[in-house]
Amino acid sequence: MPREVRERQMLDAAVEVFARRGYRAASMDEIAELAGASKPLVYLYLNSKEDLFGACVRREADALKASVRAAIEPDASADDRLWHGLRAFFTHTAEHPDGWAVLSCQARTNGEPAAPVADELRQEMVGLVTRLIAATAAEGAGGDGSAALAGHEASGLAHALVGAAESLAGWANTRTGAVPSAKETAATLMNVAWVGLENLRGGRRWTHAARP
Amino acid sequence: MPREVRERQMLDAAVEVFARRGYRAASMDEIAELAGASKPLVYLYLNSKEDLFGACVRREADALKASVRAAIEPDASADDRLWHGLRAFFTHTAEHPDGWAVLSCQARTNGEPAAPVADELRQEMVGLVTRLIAATAAEGAGGDGSAALAGHEASGLAHALVGAAESLAGWANTRTGAVPSAKETAATLMNVAWVGLENLRGGRRWTHAARP
Repeated sequence: MPREVRERQMLDAAVEVFARRGYRAASMDEIAELAGASKPLVYLYLNSKEDLFGACVRREADALKASVRAAIEPDASADDRLWHGLRAFFTHTAEHPDGWAVLSCQARTNGEPAAPVADELRQEMVGLVTRLIAATAAEGAGGDGSAALAGHEASGLAHALVGAAESLAGWANTRTGAVPSAKETAATLMNVAWVGLENLRGGRRWTHAARP
Repeated sequence: MPREVRERQMLDAAVEVFARRGYRAASMDEIAELAGASKPLVYLYLNSKEDLFGACVRREADALKASVRAAIEPDASADDRLWHGLRAFFTHTAEHPDGWAVLSCQARTNGEPAAPVADELRQEMVGLVTRLIAATAAEGAGGDGSAALAGHEASGLAHALVGAAESLAGWANTRTGAVPSAKETAATLMNVAWVGLENLRGGRRWTHAARP
């Protein structure tokens, strides 16, 4: 069997075991067994548990980024880009629940070499959403002064939206009973986020002072 | 010095070291030194690194819950309750950045005894927000049929909002330069979430089909 195929089987097995047991408790014995390979071969190909974990995180992060990027047409309107990006994100995380568990939880708190990869994935998602929000604000600017968003506000909103998407992906994947489809999950978020953004753009804000 | 005071100093030091180094890399030597105590005394009082970490997570989770609960007046309107809850949350996480770093990252991926405490904190926050969303939906129901939210949609929205708040708290705490105040951060989220919820309640939804 070619090394490439073998390595893929090892990474598949490792993602499953890391997701189920967590990084610390995952054993190379279990990973090798699940991959149908000998433990020495796993070490020969992937060097150490740390490096194997890093390779898993890198592969899963790249696959998620590729799915989201492929779904976004650069010439579409800002809300279409957000909608298709969110649908692709939730479709991918639903189809790769173990990969998402590793990326969203394990990767962040287990140091080098995984944590910087997880950080970079998050940076990319936040950057993408920040640009979408800025584009939306720009489309609406000129109407009235309140339409323009301060840079730090766009960045804050992007972090809020990405955090919301991450949380929803985990929720959808761990629900028992009726599991919402990726499309439904994306629509839930889109309904709140987009309508809220459109209102912000139009200068309509929630103000505590206006309440009795 | 009374044991209670000593233990508090040890927990203060431990939260700081766990936040800075992560669970795995944190050393009991550094914690004892920072607490101005001997290492045997730390072990005598708090038993093990695992138990010390569990005690940190429990203390920080209880303090955050108490801050949020104290800010919410049960008789206030749903949006006032959300606003005061969010302000209290962001004020607390800004004032306890190490505690928040431990709760939001370290606690979830380092197994017993910390992970269940972090889960429980999240459950409580999600439950609180789900009830607020359900209350809002109920206030608006009767107007038109689309106002009522399905139970799983309220739960999804609550997970989205809690994820957004967690993400924003981390963003506010790690920003360099002009750091937004807790009030500004809360307003950023409130602007999107509340206005979005009000629109949902009024039956205004984003629909892809309506776009050209």
